[in-house]
Amino acid sequence: MHEVFNLDRDQVPTHWYNILADLPIEVPAARSAPPRSDREGPLKPQLPLSLYRQSTGGTRFIAIPDPVRAEYQRWRPTPLFRASRLEKALDTPAHIYFKYEGTSPSGSHKINTALAQAYYYGRSGVKEMVTGTGAGQWGSALAMACHPYGMECTVFMVRSSHEQKPYRGTLMRLNGAKVITSPSTETEVGRAALRADPDSPGTLGIANAEAIEYANSRKEARFSIGSGENHVLMHQTVIGEEALLQMELAGEFPDVVIGAMGAGSNFAGLTFPFYRAAQAENPGTRFLAVEPDACPKMTRGDYLMDYTDYSGVTPAVKMYTLGHRFMAYKIHAGGLRYHGAAPIVSAMYHHDMVEAASYGQTRVFECGAAFAKAEGFVPAPESAHAVAAAIDEAVRAREERAHRVILFGLSGHGLLDLSAYESYLSGEIVDSAPTDEEIKASLQPLIDSM
Amino acid sequence: MHEVFNLDRDQVPTHWYNILADLPIEVPAARSAPPRSDREGPLKPQLPLSLYRQSTGGTRFIAIPDPVRAEYQRWRPTPLFRASRLEKALDTPAHIYFKYEGTSPSGSHKINTALAQAYYYGRSGVKEMVTGTGAGQWGSALAMACHPYGMECTVFMVRSSHEQKPYRGTLMRLNGAKVITSPSTETEVGRAALRADPDSPGTLGIANAEAIEYANSRKEARFSIGSGENHVLMHQTVIGEEALLQMELAGEFPDVVIGAMGAGSNFAGLTFPFYRAAQAENPGTRFLAVEPDACPKMTRGDYLMDYTDYSGVTPAVKMYTLGHRFMAYKIHAGGLRYHGAAPIVSAMYHHDMVEAASYGQTRVFECGAAFAKAEGFVPAPESAHAVAAAIDEAVRAREERAHRVILFGLSGHGLLDLSAYESYLSGEIVDSAPTDEEIKASLQPLIDSM
Repeated sequence: MHEVFNLDRDQVPTHWYNILADLPIEVPAARSAPPRSDREGPLKPQLPLSLYRQSTGGTRFIAIPDPVRAEYQRWRPTPLFRASRLEKALDTPAHIYFKYEGTSPSGSHKINTALAQAYYYGRSGVKEMVTGTGAGQWGSALAMACHPYGMECTVFMVRSSHEQKPYRGTLMRLNGAKVITSPSTETEVGRAALRADPDSPGTLGIANAEAIEYANSRKEARFSIGSGENHVLMHQTVIGEEALLQMELAGEFPDVVIGAMGAGSNFAGLTFPFYRAAQAENPGTRFLAVEPDACPKMTRGDYLMDYTDYSGVTPAVKMYTLGHRFMAYKIHAGGLRYHGAAPIVSAMYHHDMVEAASYGQTRVFECGAAFAKAEGFVPAPESAHAVAAAIDEAVRAREERAHRVILFGLSGHGLLDLSAYESYLSGEIVDSAPTDEEIKASLQPLIDSM
Repeated sequence: MHEVFNLDRDQVPTHWYNILADLPIEVPAARSAPPRSDREGPLKPQLPLSLYRQSTGGTRFIAIPDPVRAEYQRWRPTPLFRASRLEKALDTPAHIYFKYEGTSPSGSHKINTALAQAYYYGRSGVKEMVTGTGAGQWGSALAMACHPYGMECTVFMVRSSHEQKPYRGTLMRLNGAKVITSPSTETEVGRAALRADPDSPGTLGIANAEAIEYANSRKEARFSIGSGENHVLMHQTVIGEEALLQMELAGEFPDVVIGAMGAGSNFAGLTFPFYRAAQAENPGTRFLAVEPDACPKMTRGDYLMDYTDYSGVTPAVKMYTLGHRFMAYKIHAGGLRYHGAAPIVSAMYHHDMVEAASYGQTRVFECGAAFAKAEGFVPAPESAHAVAAAIDEAVRAREERAHRVILFGLSGHGLLDLSAYESYLSGEIVDSAPTDEEIKASLQPLIDSM
């Protein structure tokens, strides 16, 4: 039996897919942030015009520039596997496939957009990319992406993450990036946070706010973001375009496509091309976004205008959100602790075109470990959310004695998260979720300001 | 420019290459260990007949069993890259290529023989594979390999390694292995070591001796070894056979082929097929084994009959050795701290068919970090030894204004070794090497017993 479906190097997609051209629904436009008196100067535009156009345009397919595609070809196409051993372990009639992005140099899908962004920023004259990172997947991808284009990279890394996962910082530094633990003394935002609490563990919101301030104060620097934005989702569609061809090789079309949901680029990258193809191939195909119980923006949040950053200096967008000041409980899947869902994914969810489910940490690690044992690959805790949902779909198929084709995205490996798995094996993983009151309190200021 | 040379899945080799059929020199036979009074019972044969035949036979090509080849095809062929950015950083006219084994599920080449061994042991009725591991690359590969064949796996892991690199242990447990820190109370060897020193940090020699005793005492268990033996070297030739085809795609034949040298399976796996092809293609091709200054068996050891394990219960073989009781200084490249060089590699070295060089840790990490920055992949500290030698060859080519084609083996990624790179970045890496007196003292008992 063929368990792996490989493509040739020249089958790396030549175009990104812009789902905006095909959606029969409205995705509300962004609204600029109000002017603020507490900012030193005006915020200069951070996005090159080329990326702004990608974010808003109606062109269905956008050509991937040759230098970016050449970089992709260093490790793409990534493999698509049939998880036959997992099927056997679950005794399910379902066929389970997974698209594996862990073979990338940075170990996750994040580098797909990092390379595209570094290219477009560099072409517009930017010499230094600045960003914030929590779990560190995005920071290490951007660090790797800047080097080929001769750009500097500065990463504000949440202090508690940097202490918990020091090796992500090492990886960034090895790739030539400057890593600053946040809150830092480099910015006014950081200094204020340290004045309020000298031992502040930091948050992604503060790290991003520091990165924005830092980039704004340096002539040739710009702030870059790793998920959520329309163009970022689009860059990730190389995943789904390849997977479409690979499922064709497998001779099946998925009944359900599953992706872990942080801000949405991983989920969108895999599912959007299948959304397009499903219209002709299998209109009943379902698309399932999986979020953590600790940060349930889709399953328990509201569809509101909100800011994408903690400080509220970025434009507001309409999205499923828990409020931009929502503090998710600490979980090992740090990449899923973002308060909002990407505007496109949110609009599709609002119109019942995608589904959402949330999982607790214990179940996620249980499923991640079962998958590792069966298939040999250790999933990142973020990706293990998709594994958990895929396993539940397969078990349901067994109970219903139904054939079902399940495809999920394994967005990254967990080799830098083995301390979390060690906690799981030692029985130290705990579940956590916000109370209804906590969510309501976080959303009330947004509702009040409407 | 093409920077990566990929093969199709059906180009995964169908045969292993047995260099014994081609060597114009004698590789002295092994000699059984003397009977010992301190062992509880006789040592039962640990090797299945099939593997014993592979170790001694004169057949030039040995067919890879279909189930093993199907496993290889889950990630093989592995990529071969041109390191163009490293060339540019070094400003060298040399062309540098590397064969990358870090894309395997276990992250290194070790799984190539682990799968083959698990298959043959399983077919001969063995239900439990037992081994010792130091740095943990071998233990995690064997743990992963046992699962597909439904076998149990028990790994004795050196206590100091287990404490320094806990995540290798986590990885093994996730793959279903039983991990026992050594010295343990499970065996007489372990109990004796603990009586002598309750805080004993352990050694690979003790861990292997425990594994042998443990396997010997259990009916359906057998001891397995990850490098050095003839059949193990042969299983790794899939690396070189693929690289031969890939260099053909690149349109060049290497002038020098470089591999890091622990016991020799990584070095042999890459170089042996090139040794065969060089006879017709480029008889001047050099083969360079790179060892650490801390364990210089080839550059400073003697060619003697010696045991492959600390206790001296295994058959003695003729090899370049520092003595089976040699205690190498701690270095981060734990996989290269083995006291002897594989008998085949030793014989070739003795007849000037391969060269050897040794490097200090500081230079190795300096080169590993330079490679990571240029090419994006972080090398395992073991593999970084080959990187260092490749960089020196490239620099020499620049000084001599000579075109030179350099191929080296990047045997594994360093994502579980980032703490070592962190030490390097913090200036905490130290060099160490045995004195002449230490080497002489370690070899004298062997010389005396001849």
